[in-house]
Amino acid sequence: MGLLVVGSVALDSVETPFGRIDDALGGSALFFASAASLLYQRVRVVGVVGRDYPMNGLDSLRARGVDLAGVTMADGESFRWAGRYGFDLSTRETLDTRLGVFAQFKPRIPEEFRESRFVFLGNIDPELQLDVLQQVRKPEFVACDTMNYWIQGAASRVSLLKLLKHVDCLMLNDSEIRELSGDWHIQRAARWVIAHGPRYVVIKKGEHGAVLVGEGNVFYVPAFPLEDVFDPTGAGDAFAGGFMAHIAKSGNTSPANLRLAMVYGSAMGSFAVERFSIQRFAEIGPQDVMARVRASQELVHFERDFE
Amino acid sequence: MGLLVVGSVALDSVETPFGRIDDALGGSALFFASAASLLYQRVRVVGVVGRDYPMNGLDSLRARGVDLAGVTMADGESFRWAGRYGFDLSTRETLDTRLGVFAQFKPRIPEEFRESRFVFLGNIDPELQLDVLQQVRKPEFVACDTMNYWIQGAASRVSLLKLLKHVDCLMLNDSEIRELSGDWHIQRAARWVIAHGPRYVVIKKGEHGAVLVGEGNVFYVPAFPLEDVFDPTGAGDAFAGGFMAHIAKSGNTSPANLRLAMVYGSAMGSFAVERFSIQRFAEIGPQDVMARVRASQELVHFERDFE
Repeated sequence: MGLLVVGSVALDSVETPFGRIDDALGGSALFFASAASLLYQRVRVVGVVGRDYPMNGLDSLRARGVDLAGVTMADGESFRWAGRYGFDLSTRETLDTRLGVFAQFKPRIPEEFRESRFVFLGNIDPELQLDVLQQVRKPEFVACDTMNYWIQGAASRVSLLKLLKHVDCLMLNDSEIRELSGDWHIQRAARWVIAHGPRYVVIKKGEHGAVLVGEGNVFYVPAFPLEDVFDPTGAGDAFAGGFMAHIAKSGNTSPANLRLAMVYGSAMGSFAVERFSIQRFAEIGPQDVMARVRASQELVHFERDFE
Repeated sequence: MGLLVVGSVALDSVETPFGRIDDALGGSALFFASAASLLYQRVRVVGVVGRDYPMNGLDSLRARGVDLAGVTMADGESFRWAGRYGFDLSTRETLDTRLGVFAQFKPRIPEEFRESRFVFLGNIDPELQLDVLQQVRKPEFVACDTMNYWIQGAASRVSLLKLLKHVDCLMLNDSEIRELSGDWHIQRAARWVIAHGPRYVVIKKGEHGAVLVGEGNVFYVPAFPLEDVFDPTGAGDAFAGGFMAHIAKSGNTSPANLRLAMVYGSAMGSFAVERFSIQRFAEIGPQDVMARVRASQELVHFERDFE
């Protein structure tokens, strides 16, 4: 088995209306692994950090069984991102991006990770995502994320379209799928993606939940209605972590099981936003995740008055 | 029993990316009654039209048992609204509003309507909404709509807050509840409303679905994922029509039944947007509504992997 994630391991400086934090643990691979390791014990991370990275910050992940053998340390500074959220947390401004050692990131998958059956390709250059896939022997279910930057670039768009032929599930947000497909209508855009390779597409809509389309299914999971959202950073990657961890743990890629995976993803996204960085994941256990899955079901439950 | 609706009966001129229509049947009371009469046979309308109103256009409502005895004809022109939607239908511009006889509208509830147990107060001056309530003898469940115009006006806001003490359910959209409560956060805004009178609040979020909050419940219904949305006009009033008709038909105001009422409302909203004006409601029957309720349940259905 094994669930491999390749992505960024970063230091985030974030301002929200409720506070600020500097150089906090972040990056797509870290949010993914923090969420996934609550459900599944064989999470494997590939990424790169600089000499300045506070490696002991990752002890809580190790304690949950995350294998960090694929996180290499390179000469230079760690990837840093700084951003500020608006009063209602629905808009954000990037204040600074310093790629540091991430600029030269060429993921090399350790031999013992190459048998991983489940793979998540975090948001990096689609050329690198393709390269990672070639290093994994026979993955059973591959999901990938992307972003507008790669969709807009002429060369990276070609690579992304090539990548799509090799992944089972594309995960992206609503503005990204509109841009990728050229269609503002989410349902049609999802069909466009499926015509280009993936069997499934997951559209993340932030506070408006997420949609799974594929194999004749449309499944909707609302965002969990939190009273206090603190910092939206990493919610999408935590979602991916919950989604993929449930699939890896169950070893079941049926449409019915992918529905439940969406709910685990949504639960993890809701935890991510309750604190800065990956802090919330250190406070909770599997029982908390189960409680939120139950509450998600209650949120949409109704009985029909006819057969 | 009986379900009373008081609101506008208008002529709408609408431009969407897919076409345009002039002087089509519209108004909150008409969309409400078109949807409600698919589920329930004792819908009663109170409104006003001008001498120019094409009254035979209402024959399809009469055929479904809608009692139009409360629609009076006054000297002058009918209420007209003209608007244009943007390419993705999520923004709209009002091109023209001519109140006509609606400016002098003083709803007088016919004697035979005053026993109505279920009442929907469409979006009109809260003073008039209060006046309507005083004419109804002993309503069991009263819902009302409102809009930013009444929320912003100093005098109308006072009336609206007075009205809230007498209604069971406030229905409004997300921008309206934010403005009314002064809180951008939907969950807290809902609590604010409930602290001001209504037991329930329904927040309509357009393509992002609708939320019911109240009596310790939070229930979410997604918007039905349509491939083709044609004209969003009237979706909110059609939603209200489905919601109230289910409650009136069942005579059951329990939280569990209000959940199902939300789904009927959502189904009706999804039909409203498939054609111009109230056209879609003339094409469908109860079986189509039931099919959409079933599909709504399938859309959010998942099985947990634990008790």
